[in-house]
Amino acid sequence: MDLELLSGLAQPNTTKIVLCSLDGLGGLPRPETGKSELETARISNLHALAGRAACGLIRHVGPGITPGSGPGHLGLFGYDPLRFPVGRGVLEALGIDFELKPGDVAARGNFCTVDAQGKITDRRAGRIPTETCVRLVERLRRITVDGVQALVEPVKEHRFVLVLRGTGLSGRLSETDPQAVGVAPLTARALAPEAERTAAIVNRWVEAARPLLKDAGPANMLLLRGFDQQPHLPRFPDVFRLRAAAIAAYPMYRGLARLVGMEVLKTGSRFADEIATLRQHWETYDFFFLHYKDTDKAGEDGDFAAKVRALEAFDALLPQVLALKPDVLAVSGDHATPAILKAHGWQPVPTLIWSAYSGADPVSRFTERDCAGGTLGLLPAQDLMPLLMANALRFTKYGA
Amino acid sequence: MDLELLSGLAQPNTTKIVLCSLDGLGGLPRPETGKSELETARISNLHALAGRAACGLIRHVGPGITPGSGPGHLGLFGYDPLRFPVGRGVLEALGIDFELKPGDVAARGNFCTVDAQGKITDRRAGRIPTETCVRLVERLRRITVDGVQALVEPVKEHRFVLVLRGTGLSGRLSETDPQAVGVAPLTARALAPEAERTAAIVNRWVEAARPLLKDAGPANMLLLRGFDQQPHLPRFPDVFRLRAAAIAAYPMYRGLARLVGMEVLKTGSRFADEIATLRQHWETYDFFFLHYKDTDKAGEDGDFAAKVRALEAFDALLPQVLALKPDVLAVSGDHATPAILKAHGWQPVPTLIWSAYSGADPVSRFTERDCAGGTLGLLPAQDLMPLLMANALRFTKYGA
Repeated sequence: MDLELLSGLAQPNTTKIVLCSLDGLGGLPRPETGKSELETARISNLHALAGRAACGLIRHVGPGITPGSGPGHLGLFGYDPLRFPVGRGVLEALGIDFELKPGDVAARGNFCTVDAQGKITDRRAGRIPTETCVRLVERLRRITVDGVQALVEPVKEHRFVLVLRGTGLSGRLSETDPQAVGVAPLTARALAPEAERTAAIVNRWVEAARPLLKDAGPANMLLLRGFDQQPHLPRFPDVFRLRAAAIAAYPMYRGLARLVGMEVLKTGSRFADEIATLRQHWETYDFFFLHYKDTDKAGEDGDFAAKVRALEAFDALLPQVLALKPDVLAVSGDHATPAILKAHGWQPVPTLIWSAYSGADPVSRFTERDCAGGTLGLLPAQDLMPLLMANALRFTKYGA
Repeated sequence: MDLELLSGLAQPNTTKIVLCSLDGLGGLPRPETGKSELETARISNLHALAGRAACGLIRHVGPGITPGSGPGHLGLFGYDPLRFPVGRGVLEALGIDFELKPGDVAARGNFCTVDAQGKITDRRAGRIPTETCVRLVERLRRITVDGVQALVEPVKEHRFVLVLRGTGLSGRLSETDPQAVGVAPLTARALAPEAERTAAIVNRWVEAARPLLKDAGPANMLLLRGFDQQPHLPRFPDVFRLRAAAIAAYPMYRGLARLVGMEVLKTGSRFADEIATLRQHWETYDFFFLHYKDTDKAGEDGDFAAKVRALEAFDALLPQVLALKPDVLAVSGDHATPAILKAHGWQPVPTLIWSAYSGADPVSRFTERDCAGGTLGLLPAQDLMPLLMANALRFTKYGA
C-alpha cells in the first residue's frame, strides 16, 4: 500500500499497539525429529494466543529472497524494503548506535593486510582482536580532510565504520574493496557527477591512512565498502499518526527504529529489562516495537536447542506483556533463521495478530506449518502495519 | 521480482536443481466421483515427496487467465509472461523445431478456400491432409522477394509457418486473416513506420502465392497471422548463473527453452529416454528442465482415464530422478488441462519444492485441493525460480 494513502486514513484513537519482533523467528524441521524449533518448544502462551488470534505468514522482500536485518525491519515497520534500500555503511553505523545525521556518508571499513607491493593478502587482516581495531581507529582519527569531519568508530575484530560529515556529500561511490586478494585496493570513483568531490575526499583520506597503518601489520591497510547516506524515509509517527517507541537491547534495531523516526527508549540488556521499560512508558506511547534477539543468535549459531530455549524464554515472559492489556498485539519476526541453515533464511515468518476484532481462525498453534493455514494467508511484511492500525481502530474507511 | 535484482543476488554453488514440468498437470474433479485426475491416480511417490516438501499452487498469468504453452513455460522459467509476450508466429516456428534467428519475422499460415470472387469460403480449406500441405509448401518455396529469404515450413493439416529472414524487418504487421468467411483476405498493413517495408514484402509474397495455389482447391489461397519476432529475453543462464539444460521430447518445449538460452539436449521420444538423458548429462549442468507431455495430451482429448494413467506413469519413473539426488527438485506444470474441460484451463497448478531446506508443511498428498493448504500459498509462476535458487543456496541475502 502507498504510505501516503495509509497516512490519509490514519486517525487518532487511544488504543495501544505492541509489535513483538522475535529476531529470526521462523525455523525449519530438524531431520532427526521432523519438527521445527517452534514445533519443539513448550510455548503454551504463544499457542493459546494463536488460538484467539488471526495467524499467517509474512514475507519481507520476495519469494526466495533472504532479508538482511535492515529490509526485515523496514518491512515490519510498514515500508516496502525494495522501495527503500538501506546501504551497508548506514546499517553498520546503526549497528554500533552511531547517530547518523542527514547528509552523512557512512561506509563499512575492514582493516586488511597488503604485501610490499601493496597487494591485498588478507581482506580481514587475520580478524585482528577488537582491541587492536580500537587502537588503529585512534590513529585514523588524526586524519583531517578539507572541511569535512571524518568520524571513525571501531566495530568488532577487523571491522570499523567511517562517517564523513559535511555539506554537499554523496554516497554514490564505488567501493575500494576489490573483494579479492592479490590485487591492490581500488580507488573510490564517483558513480554520479554530484559525488566527484566526495570521491576525492575519500581517496585523500585513504592515502592519509596508509602511512599511519604502515607498521601495524597484519592490519597495515584498509578497505571501504557500502558507501551510503540515510535513505529518505517518511516518518513512521507521521505516516501512522502514532506516538511510537522502540525498545531493543541491541543497537542495530534501535538504529533501524530511529531511522523511521521512532523514539528509542533506554533499556537494559535482557528481555525482562525491555518489558520493564515497556511497563514504565506504557502511558506515554501508542505504539511499541519490542525486539527480542536471542532467537536469531541461537539460529545463527546452528544451535537448535538454544533456539528452542530462547522461544520458551520469550513465551514465559509473554504474560507480562499481556498483563498490560494492549488493544492490539502482534508477534512476528524480521526474517527466519533456521538452526539447520545457521543463517538468515528466505522462509516466510509465522505471524499472529490479536485484538478484539482480529477474528479467530483455524490456527491454534504458533508454528510455521499451522500459520500457513491461517486467515492472514501469506502476506508481504509491509501489510502488517495497516492490519495493526485497522485492529486498533485507527484507520478510517476508504471511500465514503 | 525484477530479474536484474535476482541476477545481483545469484551466487555460484555446486548444487543441482531439477524442475519437472508435467504439461497440463492441474485437473478438475469429474462429476461421477468428485475426484480430480490427481486425486484418482495411484501416485504414491508424488504423495510421499509432497509430504517432505513445501507445497502450493502456481498461477502463470492471472486469475481466470488460461495460459498458452508459451506464457506457461516462460512463467516456470522465471519470466513474467505479461512483460515478455511471445507471438503466435514465433510459437508456431518453435513448435516445429525451426531455429529462429534474431530479426526473423515469423507468421502462422493457414491454407484456405476462396471462391471465384476471391472471398473466403473455408478458413481451413477443409483441413487438408498434411501431405497436401507439404506439397503446397514446396510450391510456395519457389517465391523470391527482393533480398529477403522467405522460408516456408509445413506444420500439420492446413497449417504452415512463414519466416522472413533479412535485415531491417519488423513484426509490427496486421494479419491477412479476417477471421471470417464471405470476405476477401486482407492486405497486411504496417502497425509502425519501421514495418512499412516488411508489409510490402509480405503483400508481394502473398500475391506471388496466389497463382501458385489457383489450381490447388480446396487449398487455393492462404492466410497469415501472428506476425512476430523473437522477444528479447534476458538469458536464463545469465540471470540465474546456472548451466541450464532442457530435456523435452516435443519441439515446442525445446524451442521455448532455447528462447531463454538454455542448452537443449538431444533425447528420445519417451519420458524414460528423457530420464536417461538426464542421467547421462548429470555432471555437466546445474539446472535441468525436464518436460513431460502425456498429461496434457490426455487432458486435451478429454480422456480422464488416460490422464490418470499418464500421472501414474510419471510417478513410476520419479524414483529414477530422485536416485540422482538432486539438491532441489520441483514438480509443477505450465498450466492445467482438466480432462472435463478438454482444453487448457485457468486453474492454478499444484507445485512442490523439495530440498533439505524446503521445510515441511501440512500437505501430504500432491493434489489440487491439498496443495491449496501448503506453505507456498498461491504464487505467481515466475516466483518459483527464485524459490528454487534459494533452496539451492544460490542466492545471497538482500540488504546487509
